Amino acid sequence: MLVLDAEPLPRLGRLTGRARIEHADEDTLAERLPSADVLLVWDFASHAVRRAWPGQGPRPRWVHTASAGVDHLMCPELTDSDTVVTNARGIFDQPIAEYVAALVLAMAKDLPRTLELQGAREWRHREGQRVGGTRACVVGSGPIGRAIVRTLKALDITTALVGRAARTGIHGPEDLDRLIARADWVIAAAPLTEQTYGMFDARRFGVMQPSARFVNVGRGQLVVEDALAEALGKRWIAGAALDVFEHEPLTPDSALWDVPNLIVSPHMSGDTIGWRDELGRQFVELYERWAAGRPLLNVVDKQRGYVPGR
Amino acid sequence: MLVLDAEPLPRLGRLTGRARIEHADEDTLAERLPSADVLLVWDFASHAVRRAWPGQGPRPRWVHTASAGVDHLMCPELTDSDTVVTNARGIFDQPIAEYVAALVLAMAKDLPRTLELQGAREWRHREGQRVGGTRACVVGSGPIGRAIVRTLKALDITTALVGRAARTGIHGPEDLDRLIARADWVIAAAPLTEQTYGMFDARRFGVMQPSARFVNVGRGQLVVEDALAEALGKRWIAGAALDVFEHEPLTPDSALWDVPNLIVSPHMSGDTIGWRDELGRQFVELYERWAAGRPLLNVVDKQRGYVPGR
Repeated sequence: MLVLDAEPLPRLGRLTGRARIEHADEDTLAERLPSADVLLVWDFASHAVRRAWPGQGPRPRWVHTASAGVDHLMCPELTDSDTVVTNARGIFDQPIAEYVAALVLAMAKDLPRTLELQGAREWRHREGQRVGGTRACVVGSGPIGRAIVRTLKALDITTALVGRAARTGIHGPEDLDRLIARADWVIAAAPLTEQTYGMFDARRFGVMQPSARFVNVGRGQLVVEDALAEALGKRWIAGAALDVFEHEPLTPDSALWDVPNLIVSPHMSGDTIGWRDELGRQFVELYERWAAGRPLLNVVDKQRGYVPGR
Repeated sequence: MLVLDAEPLPRLGRLTGRARIEHADEDTLAERLPSADVLLVWDFASHAVRRAWPGQGPRPRWVHTASAGVDHLMCPELTDSDTVVTNARGIFDQPIAEYVAALVLAMAKDLPRTLELQGAREWRHREGQRVGGTRACVVGSGPIGRAIVRTLKALDITTALVGRAARTGIHGPEDLDRLIARADWVIAAAPLTEQTYGMFDARRFGVMQPSARFVNVGRGQLVVEDALAEALGKRWIAGAALDVFEHEPLTPDSALWDVPNLIVSPHMSGDTIGWRDELGRQFVELYERWAAGRPLLNVVDKQRGYVPGR
C-alpha cells in the first residue's frame, strides 16, 4: 500500500508485518501509483491524486482519504474506474457540530466585539441575543449536517435540514429559498458537488433576513466569496463565519480577512486534539476489513461525490 | 411607589392610574424614601439604597430589584426590618446559561486566538478541543446555576452542581475542592454572601488542573482577582473568562484587561435584547399581586442574600 504523506505521519503500527507500506509525496505519487494496491490519501489538502490518476499503468483498487470531502481527489478516470473510494465519515461530525455551536453562540453574544473592546481597554455594555427560540437552516444532510442539527436543537434552536432530495425529516432543494428566508442561522455543511457548487450566491444572500448569519463549514466552493463580502458590506445579512475557502490557505493579501462582521478561521472546524490518531485508527480498521475480504465501510458514491445516506 | 431610575426607564404603562409613580436618582433617594410604600431599584448597578436606607423616617414595605443579586442594596437596617425584598429571579437564567456555553465553546475552539490571527491576516491551523465528554463544576445551585447545568449537559458535558448545602443532585461545599480538582470547566454562578466572598482564591486556583478554565458570571467578589491573574500568568490554569468584577465598570488602567488567556466582558451575560422589557413586565406582575394583597414571589431571604431554592 501507498501513503500520500503529510506531517505528522499516520500511526499505522498495527499494520506492521501485515502490509508493505510505501510512501509518496506530490512529486513521486505518479510514478508509485501503478505498483500500489491501496492508496491512503493522508495529505487531505493535496490535489495530487486528481493530477496523477489519469496517467499510465495499473491503479490501486482502493483509495481512502482521511477527510470527509472527496472533491480534491476525484477525476473522471477515477470515477469511471472500478476503484473503491472511502472517506473518513464519522470522525468529524461532533467536532464540527460543536464548532458551529461555538460560532453561532459567539455571534449571538457579540463575542468578537467584546474581544476587540477588551483590546482597547474599553468597558462598553451591550445586549446579546438569545439563541433559544431562533431558527436555523442546515444545508447538507450527511452525518455532519445531522450532528449540527442535533447540537443546535440541544440549544433550543429550531432547525430545518436540507438535503439533495426530500425524504422523511429532510427538505429537498426546492424548499431552500423559503427556509433561508426565515432563518436566523444558515449553516452550509454540504459536500462539494455539481449541485452545490456556488449555491450561496448574491441571490441567496439577498433572500436571507438582514438579521441572518451565515456559516460555512462545508467546502469553500459552496460560496461565491465576492457575493458574500458584498452582502456583508451592504448589510444584506448581519454576519458570517467561514472556515473553508475557495483557495486554501487564504493568502495574506486576501480581501476576506477584513470584511466587516466576517469571522475567518483556518479550516479547523473538525480538527480536535487526537483527530489524527482517530483518522489513523479508522483507516487501520478499514484495512483489516479489506485484507480479510470483508466489505468496506464509508464507500463513496463516486458519481455523487459522497457516501449516500441511510 | 418610588423608582430609583436608570436609563432607559422601565415601561410601567400598565400601572397608569393604579399607582402614583415617583422617581429618584442617587442624590434624591434619601429624601424621597420616607414617603414611598414601594421601591423599585431599576438602577441595579447603584449602591444608593445601601447608603440611603439607614437614614431617618419611615421606609418602603417592599423593595424590588431588577437584578438577580441583592448584595448591592442590603445593609443591616434593611435586613433587620420588616421590609420584603424581591428580585428578578428567572429573567436571567437562560441568557446566562447560553453566555456560559458561548465562553466554554469559544475557549475550547481557541476562538480568541483565531480572531487575533485574522486581524494579523495569518492562516495558522490549530487543533480545537472537544467539549463533549469534558467535565464541569458549576458553583451556585440557584436557577441560574441549574440553567447552566442543563445547557452544558445538552453539549454532552458531564456536570456537578455545588450549592450551600448538600441535597439531592447538589453537592455541598465540602465536595468543592475534590470536584474542581478534576473539572475541565469551573463555573462560578453563586450569589455574593459571607460564604462565597473570595471563595476563588490562590489555593482554589492551585487545586484546579493546568488544563482547566474558570468562568465567573456570578459576582466579582467571589474571586480574588489578583490571585486569578497570578494563576493565569503562572499557567496554574489554562484560561478564564470574567463577566463580573470587584469594581465595575473596570477602569481603563485595570491590569485585568491584558492578563494572558483571560476574556473580559462588561457584565452582560444575562442581558439579551428585550431583557429590560422583561424586567419591567416582571415588576408589574409582582406589583399587581402586591396591590391585590396576594403573596409576592421571588422573596429574598435577607439573611442569606438570595431566594431560597425549592
